Amino acid sequence: MIYFDNAASTPVEPEVTQLVHDLMRDNYGNPSSLHEPGRRSRVVIEEARKTIAELLGVSSSEIVFTSGGTEANNHILWSCFLDLKIQHFITSPLEHPAVLNTLKNISNHFDIKISYVNINSQGHIDIEHLDHILKNSPLTLVSLMHANNEIGNLLPVNQVKKLCDNHKALFHSDTVQTIGKYQMDLHSLGFDFAVASAHKFHGPKGVGFSYINSDKELKSFITGGMQERDLRAGTENIYCIAGMALALEIAMKDIKENKKHISNLKSRLIEKITRELPEIEFYGDEKKEGLYSIINLKLPQTEHSEMLPIKLDIEGIAVSGGSACSSGSNKPSHVISSLDPEEIRPSLRVSFSKFNTTKEIDVFVETLKNIYL
Amino acid sequence: MIYFDNAASTPVEPEVTQLVHDLMRDNYGNPSSLHEPGRRSRVVIEEARKTIAELLGVSSSEIVFTSGGTEANNHILWSCFLDLKIQHFITSPLEHPAVLNTLKNISNHFDIKISYVNINSQGHIDIEHLDHILKNSPLTLVSLMHANNEIGNLLPVNQVKKLCDNHKALFHSDTVQTIGKYQMDLHSLGFDFAVASAHKFHGPKGVGFSYINSDKELKSFITGGMQERDLRAGTENIYCIAGMALALEIAMKDIKENKKHISNLKSRLIEKITRELPEIEFYGDEKKEGLYSIINLKLPQTEHSEMLPIKLDIEGIAVSGGSACSSGSNKPSHVISSLDPEEIRPSLRVSFSKFNTTKEIDVFVETLKNIYL
Repeated sequence: MIYFDNAASTPVEPEVTQLVHDLMRDNYGNPSSLHEPGRRSRVVIEEARKTIAELLGVSSSEIVFTSGGTEANNHILWSCFLDLKIQHFITSPLEHPAVLNTLKNISNHFDIKISYVNINSQGHIDIEHLDHILKNSPLTLVSLMHANNEIGNLLPVNQVKKLCDNHKALFHSDTVQTIGKYQMDLHSLGFDFAVASAHKFHGPKGVGFSYINSDKELKSFITGGMQERDLRAGTENIYCIAGMALALEIAMKDIKENKKHISNLKSRLIEKITRELPEIEFYGDEKKEGLYSIINLKLPQTEHSEMLPIKLDIEGIAVSGGSACSSGSNKPSHVISSLDPEEIRPSLRVSFSKFNTTKEIDVFVETLKNIYL
Repeated sequence: MIYFDNAASTPVEPEVTQLVHDLMRDNYGNPSSLHEPGRRSRVVIEEARKTIAELLGVSSSEIVFTSGGTEANNHILWSCFLDLKIQHFITSPLEHPAVLNTLKNISNHFDIKISYVNINSQGHIDIEHLDHILKNSPLTLVSLMHANNEIGNLLPVNQVKKLCDNHKALFHSDTVQTIGKYQMDLHSLGFDFAVASAHKFHGPKGVGFSYINSDKELKSFITGGMQERDLRAGTENIYCIAGMALALEIAMKDIKENKKHISNLKSRLIEKITRELPEIEFYGDEKKEGLYSIINLKLPQTEHSEMLPIKLDIEGIAVSGGSACSSGSNKPSHVISSLDPEEIRPSLRVSFSKFNTTKEIDVFVETLKNIYL
């Protein structure tokens, strides 16, 4: 199996799997209990929090553990509405459903204004338009993802941050695709809120965290017990939290090598396709300078293209016809549909991890050629 | 270590730990992905759902996986408010914070009515009062826990169900303490909504589920992707979900023996304390007929009692001075405070699992005697 769908989920690091196993075997106390088994579980969580906070240049108290990026996005958006009384949310049509559908859900029930910043046909946001819609807007949250999960475009964070500051807006970024892929200092980058999902960086599925700047007084979305300093109720998944911290530690330790290796895979694929299958183009940034682990192929409108993910699956190559969260339908994804409406074509997201090889790129291109030529 | 805090959390079954490990090693596909690794993860989840549904006498489509009982309670209460437009919630002062604080949170922001059914000094609800407050109440949800997590009292489910039916109210029960402890058919019991947390029945922490009767059209609380048939967004913790199903299977297979063994431990403790430490009484049902795994000691008001959980911890015995979710404070828990206000005394929750032994009961009583006598 050639696994080229790492933007959907990544294989778990063997060391992480072992750690989860050992903790599940040995640490049975409820981390909210005061006795010795409880305190041992508490230490596991707090050490994980410290590790993650240090790797991302923030305070431990700014990291809140969740069941993943989706819950983290829900927490931030709902609490901005309910507790910070934000009435205006600015986002883009290319955001993840965890942001788009949550804002729609809030607006289905309550009176909020949602503005969508214009994007160009390469998937970049229109900074002047963002400046325009921020004007005269009281109490606004800007929610724009750091790297798009389908086409890989990167947000010009400094420019957006500057506009947010000029207009006294808060800045949330869905950083699910970039945490563990870049050396990032969330404080310096200027996010008020950011989120992560462990299974995007070789950690377990079903665990993640929010970064919540300590100046911002969010409240709990999931309420009940006082866990996570009263910011997220529910007994913690101590094993997966510790596994996530270890996965991030491993990712950050080898980040330069991984980036170089994966960038080479992406370049090789682009070069080979450009040379050998010129009818295939690319969605996203015109210089292909987005996230180094994602490339989105813009396929010719032929019968082969519609069935391509299934044909590749039969050949033992796993890729995505859309994002995992919107798969199951044959429609072009909301991201592709939001780019140039004149140019909607079948698409194929190819996304790499450090476990992929140049050999796999070559097999993939040969397989494409067998299907198309 | 003698671990008598199984109502807070239980040790994970070794078979479950091994299964989680193997799945984490082998199943890396996102269960929403259509390719082979994705489909393999999907099968893991759907098999777990089928196992759980069959064990509890419901349809697979009525089980929604969550990050635990707290999230499940939040989901049900928020969606009853937002989507079913419930305006009146009836609960009791003895409920878990996941219910009490969530209702308070909703009422802090929105105009809902919360009624608290009266309870007597043994912790039983006043059925006549419930009937009274259900009268002339349109669109009501009754939320009463199946077994109290601190004193073990069992809800008279049939009586409550009958009243709910008479008054066309919906019936939610926090069944976190009873799932895996009784042979339960959630359909026949008449719950519209129920919840579970795997770590209460020797499954992993941080995973649980809601039972949502198929006639009740709840919507998602955590929104985003279409996971869980659009009832709970976010990539699923496939390993812990499968671990939960296996843990429930093991619990139900041996349920008669476990119940007999644990009930014997409880009886032995009650007998020994009654005989050898008569100054210690008991909170909860006067005949001690509540949940067979929990007993709550009503301690004499002496200097020893205040420090008892800590002293026992030093002796290697883990018990709870309150529930784990409200521990960390020295105040009597909201449950104890809601019983006879004239009789608030230090309390000690002792809760057993199948892994406990009669020898441990004897050591515990001897230790208590050394402290008190």
